[in-house]
Amino acid sequence: MQPVLNYIDSNSSNYINELQSFLSIESISSDPEKKSEMERCAQFIKDKFSAMGLDNIKVLNEEGFPIVYADKIVSPKKPTVLFYGHYDVQPVDPIDLWTSPPFSGEIREGKIWARGATDDKGQLLTHLKSVEAFLATSTELPVNVKFIIEGEEEIGSPSLPKTIASNKELLACDTVVISDTSMYGEKTPSITYSLRGLAYFQIEFTGPNRDLHSGTFGGAVMNPLQAMCDLLSGMKDKNGKITIPGFYDDVLKLTKAERDGFKKLKFSEKAYMKELEVAELFGEKGFSTFERTGARPSLEINGIWGGFTGQGAKTVLPSKSYAKISMRLVPHQTPKKIEKLLNAYLKKVVPKSIKYTCTALHGGEPALTPIDGKAIQSAARAMKSVFGKSPVFTREGGSIPIVVEFSRLLSAPVVLMGFGLSTENLHSPNEHFDLNNFHKGIMCSAVFMEDFTKQ
Amino acid sequence: MQPVLNYIDSNSSNYINELQSFLSIESISSDPEKKSEMERCAQFIKDKFSAMGLDNIKVLNEEGFPIVYADKIVSPKKPTVLFYGHYDVQPVDPIDLWTSPPFSGEIREGKIWARGATDDKGQLLTHLKSVEAFLATSTELPVNVKFIIEGEEEIGSPSLPKTIASNKELLACDTVVISDTSMYGEKTPSITYSLRGLAYFQIEFTGPNRDLHSGTFGGAVMNPLQAMCDLLSGMKDKNGKITIPGFYDDVLKLTKAERDGFKKLKFSEKAYMKELEVAELFGEKGFSTFERTGARPSLEINGIWGGFTGQGAKTVLPSKSYAKISMRLVPHQTPKKIEKLLNAYLKKVVPKSIKYTCTALHGGEPALTPIDGKAIQSAARAMKSVFGKSPVFTREGGSIPIVVEFSRLLSAPVVLMGFGLSTENLHSPNEHFDLNNFHKGIMCSAVFMEDFTKQ
Repeated sequence: MQPVLNYIDSNSSNYINELQSFLSIESISSDPEKKSEMERCAQFIKDKFSAMGLDNIKVLNEEGFPIVYADKIVSPKKPTVLFYGHYDVQPVDPIDLWTSPPFSGEIREGKIWARGATDDKGQLLTHLKSVEAFLATSTELPVNVKFIIEGEEEIGSPSLPKTIASNKELLACDTVVISDTSMYGEKTPSITYSLRGLAYFQIEFTGPNRDLHSGTFGGAVMNPLQAMCDLLSGMKDKNGKITIPGFYDDVLKLTKAERDGFKKLKFSEKAYMKELEVAELFGEKGFSTFERTGARPSLEINGIWGGFTGQGAKTVLPSKSYAKISMRLVPHQTPKKIEKLLNAYLKKVVPKSIKYTCTALHGGEPALTPIDGKAIQSAARAMKSVFGKSPVFTREGGSIPIVVEFSRLLSAPVVLMGFGLSTENLHSPNEHFDLNNFHKGIMCSAVFMEDFTKQ
Repeated sequence: MQPVLNYIDSNSSNYINELQSFLSIESISSDPEKKSEMERCAQFIKDKFSAMGLDNIKVLNEEGFPIVYADKIVSPKKPTVLFYGHYDVQPVDPIDLWTSPPFSGEIREGKIWARGATDDKGQLLTHLKSVEAFLATSTELPVNVKFIIEGEEEIGSPSLPKTIASNKELLACDTVVISDTSMYGEKTPSITYSLRGLAYFQIEFTGPNRDLHSGTFGGAVMNPLQAMCDLLSGMKDKNGKITIPGFYDDVLKLTKAERDGFKKLKFSEKAYMKELEVAELFGEKGFSTFERTGARPSLEINGIWGGFTGQGAKTVLPSKSYAKISMRLVPHQTPKKIEKLLNAYLKKVVPKSIKYTCTALHGGEPALTPIDGKAIQSAARAMKSVFGKSPVFTREGGSIPIVVEFSRLLSAPVVLMGFGLSTENLHSPNEHFDLNNFHKGIMCSAVFMEDFTKQ
């Protein structure tokens, strides 16, 4: 094992160069104009797999962006670890808020700055590098390894579930390891045992059949912008509770043990507010901020537009308005049921004079992994050995919808071993990844494999 | 007089060609990129004045878009009529909803289709053509005429009041005639005796200091889009009443005579709804649609934006949101007082965690002209003689803020003799002007001058 760790230590600057190349590819899955970049990114992964010496390198799907597979089976007697990651990234707008270009991978303050740095290129690369370290030093891999790397995570992984379903044998494993979550704090290694799900919708409202002069018509008809504001405002009460009837029906209550555990986590509301520069926090009454963002469902307006948005004053009463909203779900809510409840709610509350369409854009189930499993415990020991500190077990607010699919289809526990930080601006301008955690991530991945084979 | 009317009749196709040339100029005052078009449009007016044979042609202002003046003083014993109009137009977006290009002036269905056709190029041209008809036929003008044509009406006439104030002698007159309003119906000539004022604001909201991931942060902080929706929704109650404290304090109550007069006006709510394709109307409870749009104040959201507005699903909890809102005011409300009330309201209701700025973009006082004045009665007789029907006296919902300035600074009654129709899509795609009303407008203007001199 020592040669592997030495190899990792002596190659850290090479790893940074490789990550920079990876980050230079503009693999925005939601942007139709970046199709060729997506292809280029998938090819980058395949080339890495090939250079490492993995076998069986192939694309598993025919439709959608390539899902790249590779493996190294050393012995049927050894346990098998499936590593998952995604090479697609979020859009970069508003571009003018980036300090360095979003695909430059600039290094400053011990961090690498780029879209995808922490979500998920930097994190997924840790596992490629750890496996490579075994192969490069001719050290026998302690486990059989399989990789499945997709390019549609940021658009809801439309191709992955059916690809897993039709490749169950190929993907069979004892655990799935995913590094796409955050550490609880800069020096607090963490394992996430629950993720929120997602139900994302776009609602389009139509009032009068054309844009009207607000002088001539102001006061006569329901303005679709007004109807939209009324609707979105009414969806939450003043205690931060979501008012859609039935919304909380399937929410699994937190246990006392869980809530007690959360209370022990260091959390400074003051520091949190300072970091975000807000004068107060707002969320569901009766729950802590940690619970509100990880263990309770939420509803956010993600985008809104309509009417005149240019410079100056155009006195228009518009015909149309638009909103993107999404709910974060917790076990056992499902996006399908939430969609039904939302549609019933819209039917009830949107005024008669406003036509609307509601389109589900993206959905994912929430996930929960028992924390006493073998793999999760191996991961905890690996983290302790590398970070010098036992990890905390947390719930996380973000969604990795396919976590549920993996555990359901492969009947294997999913270990969420995150090396990112929630302050690393994932989905925002100036996304970055701490290079120290990048390096420790590679170490952790190696130690984890070594530990897991002994269980 | 007959030669003048004959001349007008025989030149109608020339007039249409001239209007097309006028409409081909892209004089959008709010668009910084159209500055040269604005200059070109002012020059177009000066050239027309010169070709007609007017005297004293000049630009009255040094800052802002040119305010073009010209006159023809025939005798100090005759009354003087000051004609006002504006050559600037509204923006054209959304451009893809136009059937023919917005500056083509296409003729179809007896109408001319272009931005500015009815608001106000077509309407203002009627007075140039009527005066020209006297001069071209060597018929003595029955009144002294003065023209003042500005290019900043659509952006709130920032230069006009001070220009009037510093040219009081030059502009001295017995009445100001403005054709920038609508007829009550296609065959119902109208004189508008009251206009609503305007108070237009842009409000910018800031929540957290950066765009956040809605998974990691959803449920923890007030989303500025949510705060904006809550605010805008709360500004009207379910009866359509504006909830800003003090908003109605200065509203002049309608008299019983006025309300009885309005009741006699033909108004089909059914036809109105059908024309706008809405299933029901919405406005202040206790008032008719005619009253809501003309005689009562209103508040409309004109534009709204923030967060992710592109294709697909970006799970962002944004840092900023924006709204443009405007109130239509009635006598004796003032934009200054409304701004104060709005600011007090914002201070009270915007949550502590949301920073905001509120900028007044545009304001205008409401106007009221006594209907028993000489000029307004002359206008009524002229309309009756040309349209074969006495005009109705109406209130109009739109704002011409400078109406108040004219009557205040020149101590002359303002006659609003409109030849447009409210259905002519002013401020919307597919703006147009009925060519029959264009022709009748020229006639009316001529007959009005003849009648007014006899009073």
